[in-house]
Amino acid sequence: MNHYPSSIRKVITSFNKLPGIGLKTAERLAMHLLSAPEPEVLELARSIGELKKTIQLCSQCFALSDSGLCRICGNPARDRTTICVVENQADMVAIEKSGAFAGLYHILQGLLSPMDNIGPDDIRIRELLSKIEKGGVREVIIATGTNVEGEATASYISDCLTRYSVTITRIASGVPVGGELKYVDQVTLKKAMEARHAV
Amino acid sequence: MNHYPSSIRKVITSFNKLPGIGLKTAERLAMHLLSAPEPEVLELARSIGELKKTIQLCSQCFALSDSGLCRICGNPARDRTTICVVENQADMVAIEKSGAFAGLYHILQGLLSPMDNIGPDDIRIRELLSKIEKGGVREVIIATGTNVEGEATASYISDCLTRYSVTITRIASGVPVGGELKYVDQVTLKKAMEARHAV
Repeated sequence: MNHYPSSIRKVITSFNKLPGIGLKTAERLAMHLLSAPEPEVLELARSIGELKKTIQLCSQCFALSDSGLCRICGNPARDRTTICVVENQADMVAIEKSGAFAGLYHILQGLLSPMDNIGPDDIRIRELLSKIEKGGVREVIIATGTNVEGEATASYISDCLTRYSVTITRIASGVPVGGELKYVDQVTLKKAMEARHAV
Repeated sequence: MNHYPSSIRKVITSFNKLPGIGLKTAERLAMHLLSAPEPEVLELARSIGELKKTIQLCSQCFALSDSGLCRICGNPARDRTTICVVENQADMVAIEKSGAFAGLYHILQGLLSPMDNIGPDDIRIRELLSKIEKGGVREVIIATGTNVEGEATASYISDCLTRYSVTITRIASGVPVGGELKYVDQVTLKKAMEARHAV
């Protein structure tokens, strides 16, 4: 590291902090940037710098969005009677990619985890319930992962929902037990979506 | 990709252009940045943005540097009678890491390659010769890679140098034939450096 000028060293250090980027890869990326076209390098810097400034949460589903309402909630073609509850943005994207769902989402931004002091108030369950209270929703699909926290959260949400007249379904098996949704292949996700069962 | 807001999509696209970063990895990195501490993200953006602005070539050896003179050329402890000729910065860093060399470098910034229209005038051979003409240099170690272009360049440089009263040496075998210096382990590089032979 000491063999590089400080401006290159800074880039290497920053890259090295990213997940899965070791020192060798960070060095290779920095050297690539030095020989890459200037606009490409500046676009990378600008897009990273702007990321946190422009991104906000959708006021309806809490997906990451450039504006107050995300593209799915703002799309009149989506089925507003079905809500799919997922842990995070990556899981939502995985389901969108499978193409098996045309309704709206509710992104919890986390899972229940008493060990980490994460309770129902921390993961937007109250917002989900008030959405159901407003009426118009016929089915809630709980599509949290099948690991311990995912199952516990699914179970808690389905308990909360029993007092409303909505069908509560859970994404079907097919998703490997203990796995995280974002790593599942699209066909498996589609099958799991189609075979969802009543809780 | 269409499932992400445009500011995230821009980051993914930019990351995806880097060598060895596929779409999945680019997505993972972008999602990581969203949850990473703000100063860390801004530091990454800033360091990349500044990279091309602050970096320049050392006036003596043409290494990448933050100022007009690199830290090796500016170091009075380095042996000024020996010059090691390398293809690029990464090769120089590899030799520095091996710790087997205490002299100065001359970075060609390329190799002879008639197919790509790269001739002697494109890779700073003239600057090397005028450095030798000024006197004070006793040995030139040619440490270009052992692939075809590296050997051709080494051969051309040693031909040019025969008219001066300097010892011309070539980095020793030990470096795998057809390989590039920057990927060689440090012990092998050290052995190769110690066993250098007269051309």
